[in-house]
Amino acid sequence: MKYNQYAYVDTDYDKQVKELRDINFLPQNFKDWSFSDLLAKLVKMTIAEAKSDEAKTAKLAEFAVSDTQTLAEFIAEKPEKIGTNQFYNVALQLLGYHVHYDYQLDDPTGFMQKQALPVVKDIDSIEKLVSAFYRLLNTRAKNGQLLIDVMAGKGYFTQFWGQNEFKYFNGKSLPVFNTDKVIREVVYVETDLDTDKDGKSDLIQVTVFRPAESNNNLKVPALYTASPYFGGIIANEKRNHNVDENLSDATEWDDPKYEASPEVKAQKPGTENRPATEEAVHKSSYPLNEYLLARGFASVFAGGIGTRGSDGLRITGAPEETESAKEVIEWLHGDRIAYTDRSKKHETKASWCNGNIGMTGRSYLGTLQIAVATTGVKGLKTVVSEAAISSWYDYYREHGLVIAPEACQGEDLDLLAETCQSNLWDAGSYLKIKPKYNEMQKHLLSHEDRTTGQYSDFWEARNYRHHTDGIKCSWISVHGLNDWNVKPKNVYKVWQKVKNLPIKHHLFLHQGPHYNMNNLVSIDFTDLMNLWFVHELLDIENNAYDQWPTVMIQDNLHADKWHKEDDWSNEIGQEVTYYPTNDGDLQKDGNGKDKQSFTDVGGKEFKEAKISEEDWQYKFICGDEKWAKPSLRFTTDEFIHPLTIVGRPEVKVRVSGSLPKGQISVALVELGNRKRLTATPKFLMRGGQELGYRFGTDTLQEFVPDKLTHAKLITKGHMNLQNYEDMMKPSKIEAGEFVDLDFKLQPTYYRLPIGAKLALIIYSTDQGMTKRPLEDETYTVDLANTEIKFYQK
Amino acid sequence: MKYNQYAYVDTDYDKQVKELRDINFLPQNFKDWSFSDLLAKLVKMTIAEAKSDEAKTAKLAEFAVSDTQTLAEFIAEKPEKIGTNQFYNVALQLLGYHVHYDYQLDDPTGFMQKQALPVVKDIDSIEKLVSAFYRLLNTRAKNGQLLIDVMAGKGYFTQFWGQNEFKYFNGKSLPVFNTDKVIREVVYVETDLDTDKDGKSDLIQVTVFRPAESNNNLKVPALYTASPYFGGIIANEKRNHNVDENLSDATEWDDPKYEASPEVKAQKPGTENRPATEEAVHKSSYPLNEYLLARGFASVFAGGIGTRGSDGLRITGAPEETESAKEVIEWLHGDRIAYTDRSKKHETKASWCNGNIGMTGRSYLGTLQIAVATTGVKGLKTVVSEAAISSWYDYYREHGLVIAPEACQGEDLDLLAETCQSNLWDAGSYLKIKPKYNEMQKHLLSHEDRTTGQYSDFWEARNYRHHTDGIKCSWISVHGLNDWNVKPKNVYKVWQKVKNLPIKHHLFLHQGPHYNMNNLVSIDFTDLMNLWFVHELLDIENNAYDQWPTVMIQDNLHADKWHKEDDWSNEIGQEVTYYPTNDGDLQKDGNGKDKQSFTDVGGKEFKEAKISEEDWQYKFICGDEKWAKPSLRFTTDEFIHPLTIVGRPEVKVRVSGSLPKGQISVALVELGNRKRLTATPKFLMRGGQELGYRFGTDTLQEFVPDKLTHAKLITKGHMNLQNYEDMMKPSKIEAGEFVDLDFKLQPTYYRLPIGAKLALIIYSTDQGMTKRPLEDETYTVDLANTEIKFYQK
Repeated sequence: MKYNQYAYVDTDYDKQVKELRDINFLPQNFKDWSFSDLLAKLVKMTIAEAKSDEAKTAKLAEFAVSDTQTLAEFIAEKPEKIGTNQFYNVALQLLGYHVHYDYQLDDPTGFMQKQALPVVKDIDSIEKLVSAFYRLLNTRAKNGQLLIDVMAGKGYFTQFWGQNEFKYFNGKSLPVFNTDKVIREVVYVETDLDTDKDGKSDLIQVTVFRPAESNNNLKVPALYTASPYFGGIIANEKRNHNVDENLSDATEWDDPKYEASPEVKAQKPGTENRPATEEAVHKSSYPLNEYLLARGFASVFAGGIGTRGSDGLRITGAPEETESAKEVIEWLHGDRIAYTDRSKKHETKASWCNGNIGMTGRSYLGTLQIAVATTGVKGLKTVVSEAAISSWYDYYREHGLVIAPEACQGEDLDLLAETCQSNLWDAGSYLKIKPKYNEMQKHLLSHEDRTTGQYSDFWEARNYRHHTDGIKCSWISVHGLNDWNVKPKNVYKVWQKVKNLPIKHHLFLHQGPHYNMNNLVSIDFTDLMNLWFVHELLDIENNAYDQWPTVMIQDNLHADKWHKEDDWSNEIGQEVTYYPTNDGDLQKDGNGKDKQSFTDVGGKEFKEAKISEEDWQYKFICGDEKWAKPSLRFTTDEFIHPLTIVGRPEVKVRVSGSLPKGQISVALVELGNRKRLTATPKFLMRGGQELGYRFGTDTLQEFVPDKLTHAKLITKGHMNLQNYEDMMKPSKIEAGEFVDLDFKLQPTYYRLPIGAKLALIIYSTDQGMTKRPLEDETYTVDLANTEIKFYQK
Repeated sequence: MKYNQYAYVDTDYDKQVKELRDINFLPQNFKDWSFSDLLAKLVKMTIAEAKSDEAKTAKLAEFAVSDTQTLAEFIAEKPEKIGTNQFYNVALQLLGYHVHYDYQLDDPTGFMQKQALPVVKDIDSIEKLVSAFYRLLNTRAKNGQLLIDVMAGKGYFTQFWGQNEFKYFNGKSLPVFNTDKVIREVVYVETDLDTDKDGKSDLIQVTVFRPAESNNNLKVPALYTASPYFGGIIANEKRNHNVDENLSDATEWDDPKYEASPEVKAQKPGTENRPATEEAVHKSSYPLNEYLLARGFASVFAGGIGTRGSDGLRITGAPEETESAKEVIEWLHGDRIAYTDRSKKHETKASWCNGNIGMTGRSYLGTLQIAVATTGVKGLKTVVSEAAISSWYDYYREHGLVIAPEACQGEDLDLLAETCQSNLWDAGSYLKIKPKYNEMQKHLLSHEDRTTGQYSDFWEARNYRHHTDGIKCSWISVHGLNDWNVKPKNVYKVWQKVKNLPIKHHLFLHQGPHYNMNNLVSIDFTDLMNLWFVHELLDIENNAYDQWPTVMIQDNLHADKWHKEDDWSNEIGQEVTYYPTNDGDLQKDGNGKDKQSFTDVGGKEFKEAKISEEDWQYKFICGDEKWAKPSLRFTTDEFIHPLTIVGRPEVKVRVSGSLPKGQISVALVELGNRKRLTATPKFLMRGGQELGYRFGTDTLQEFVPDKLTHAKLITKGHMNLQNYEDMMKPSKIEAGEFVDLDFKLQPTYYRLPIGAKLALIIYSTDQGMTKRPLEDETYTVDLANTEIKFYQK
């Protein structure tokens, strides 16, 4: 499997020498050393776990240069050069590979080619040797980390602890900070909000993890994660709303309005600056932050209003949540007051912060990055937003329907508010908040309007895409192309706006579901982020802006291939339209004229069968006889050339229902018997990545070929028949009345291999996402006015 | 669920006061304090995360004494006593419970009763208040740890760092050691072995984790884990032996002999004592050790011969492995030489060790405890051996058959040797060891004799039970009653010997499979071990020997109930015998006279069906028509009184096979539709237990009722027809010849609820354990000479 590397910055020899000397790896007078002495020295430096020269020397016998000679024996011969195979037999061991089990001593470079590891050939001079080691320290080891980071995990950089300065190597920050002494403190930021309506500004708890060195006049940047889950998660999924109910007439819609909470302005910051008096009990929830904390970046977490330790109420997705998340940055930037404890007696400042803040986090934590970025708040330099919601309507609704995130049937704004309202856990806070929380729950329940599923002012206030013009910071989005929790439309639609802003912007699309990507084999994402944050928050010119393409997309056939694109949109492909035939085919010149029907039975059979939503979906897309019955299916011939579907497919369906209401789902599926990639990455070396020195670990992982399957969902979409005239407003329809639905499916980037077929499936109840009506409804589709258009390359 | 507590040592008031003062929890002049001031003070002391009095005071408003009053308001009223409900509303919060979600403010003690949490009533005096807090600090919090340990996780004991002494609280050692500075070092112990036959003593690598304080003249005890997996695991399960083969005529057996490796005596220890020069790269693999490391116990790991960093060869289960594991203790005790590195230039001593060593670990790591204990080596004071093998024949064989550990079909001694031969991973070592390793593999393969499955001198050398007279240390065994990897016979048979030795001995039997038990809800095992090791290795009299019963057995119906027994044997029950009837019943007066037959088809249908071994077993014991066919089944009536089956059921079966060879399996199964316990404990608060202060975590867990099942395996056993005359020697048999098999099933302690039935199943091929013949064989059972006898209480 390829260990691709995008974060290696081309570095000339003089700079290599300077950097290697700067970390005490290369002797200052190395030019006076013999080749063999220097070779031995540099191998020994790399063996960071041996602490004395004697111990390091003893270790040389554990390496082999060939199948007949150890490194110790080789060096004893005082060689003046080293063969490529000889060098890389040793190098592979240093990288953590095992002879015989991983590679063979007679062909190390063949193995390296397979792993996409860089090779420096003909090491016949001191210069070549130095360059080969520079490249080697910047090569990804078997555990996925750069060798220099593996050495760090063995304590190499403790020699620099206490020096109170950043150190860079190949453009990235090194873990030279004393992780034994990390400061973990809690402060209370005063907001301008009064969501609990007690006439006082809501205080919110902020947890800071920062290098001890930042108490010694070293200003450090902050990575801020706004995490509503940070204070704890109230498990309420058993109380999810019932989805086994009939559709309602959507014209009952009364356009519920967003209602703002009162404001109470916070005090302006004063001059006092007491040290924090409360220690953090929660931990960082994100290994990337820990990795960067060891490298000098403070890590800041705040749950925001309504979470444990904070005042106020959760109001899922509302502007108040944006505001409360943003105000933490104001404190970090010196523009807002915070206190040492909830009695507000003493002010405390983020005087340790250099004023440059980046944001990180996934899901809700990524969502709040989009939200905060749109405010243009001072100090926020960049966001790395993973699997983020860009409009809450696109999370819980679609085209006039209640549509669940995957594996969250019946969840909604109100329930997510409860999940995060962790200040209810502290009894003192509970006594005060509970009645107000109960009111807010009622408000959310009525205004989210699960009855009609329509868009409204209430949802409009939760659409961050209307405010992208406010974005001032640079931008990285990360999303899984198989994320059916936060569906890809969220990232796609915000990307179409962000890509036109005068800010540096990047997009990563991986093959995961709702998942992080910072420890995949196939891409050195962690190193890229190091490079990125050094550039954005420490103002070091390290080529970060030119280091990798604007859009990087992981291939769905071979996980270790990443496609490089300038954009992700329909425009990178060419339009093609397919039409159904009367016989169930799907063709460019399909000319179906029939009106074909299917009868939807809601969730009846699904519930009787007691299978999981996931099982249902797989059987359904495979065309299993029982489950395929309530659907129409149109299938292409086998493709004889590979192609890639890009952007958002668009479907037109002329359809009537036997009731004066209805929901239509459309799925685009790939058929073919193949070993497709695992749904989530496989853990390869559990806990094998040291984030610092004795400072927590992460696990290398990658998508790998799984057992044979018959089909895979490419994309799908859902629409309310009552929105045929206007996506934003329902219309009355009659039973039997044909309406023209025209809507887009979730965006994709899907490579179809030779021999695969495409299937267009038109159905109604989607067991895992739509409501599951109790009444049957027969849908009739007019094939003459039904088509799917997509973009291919 | 009950948080049972067995490690709380009854402590009189004066000692409570002394201990509370000693940890700076109770003010020296507490008798001069008012009740309300002292109440506030002690709550504030418990809030260890708040570091200043102001911060602690601010926190008091987050607690409630009732549904109308916060603790801050209550204290402002200057009360002179506190109601039981008021106190425990606060106490439950301190223990980590959440109001409303876990308990109700109007009935805290009702909740506490359900959780088996201790309550001190009528707290109307300073004395009562002090006692209530003493008991509270020694009460298990929601995360399963004692509250004092939760406080430790928040840094309470950092005030004692550097004081260089042990501190005890309620008989247990406190985490007063500076875990930021733990020493992690590697040394090389010289053995008397020369398993790689190079004429030199094999060196073995030993990894030591110890408190920094042990460099300052504080002698500490050592917990030693002999772990062949410590250097890494070579994945070879894909090369497991083929089990889809016919049985052989066992009389081909040639009684393979154990062959000892040469010895080369190590140097005697000298006077030099250099500090270690190599740092550990591996970590502790066992949270219990980490917990105890924070509490002053060094943690020592060694892989032994053949593992990474060590010389020599793996010889699974052989006396050489015992010897190499034992010799580490000799070094710890000062009786053997070790070096700083493999060049053997400098000697290094365990001068930090107080000479008292305990052993810990599970599976192979537990096995080596039994092995080492039998040597009576000086310095070894106690073993806590979990899920250990006591005879390797009982791991890979049974009654003349090759019988796999669960989920390990085709594994054997040779493959386990390869798994652990991690010194092959270092190329220098590989060049030297590989040819010798290849020879050893051949030797193991031929001598383990998968052909006949018979006992021999080769296996005899791997039966530790012959050497129990050598045991000098105290003894704790832990085993899962559902462990089908290391089957319970291993612990049962060694227990029958150990219980008669003049040593203190204990047994814990839990409901898990091959699993640890140190973080269950239902028992405070970690605290018990703290108490135990303090007693055994620090010579503190803390009542450990009288604190809990000799045998503790977890109930199979209610996971939070532990049975207290004096012994585990047939003798704790009464004998009862059941006989089959011609009609498939199993009765005390069963009088079957038939000869009934079934035809075994080996693994044919199983492999065609492509189901897992686990699936097969469940369907098979449930009596699924297809899978039950190759078996005879005899079922009791529903039991109208509950009973417990104890010890080892014994079966007699008169049987003939249609071939001149054969294997018989017998299973005892409980039938009944119930929600039985999960196979493994459910994780309840992932990472919620702090092992020290910022020093790693563990997870609370417990068996909980799972989905409804129809049957559960109680016990089973297997026997070769050719061993009917002698378990140790095969006999010729003829096709059709009736032989009398008489053998014991695995031991158990199984509570049958009212309404359950017992089923006796007689079959041949056990898909997950026996060989799976390619040829059919028809077995005929003479019911008149078939019975099952067991012991019940």
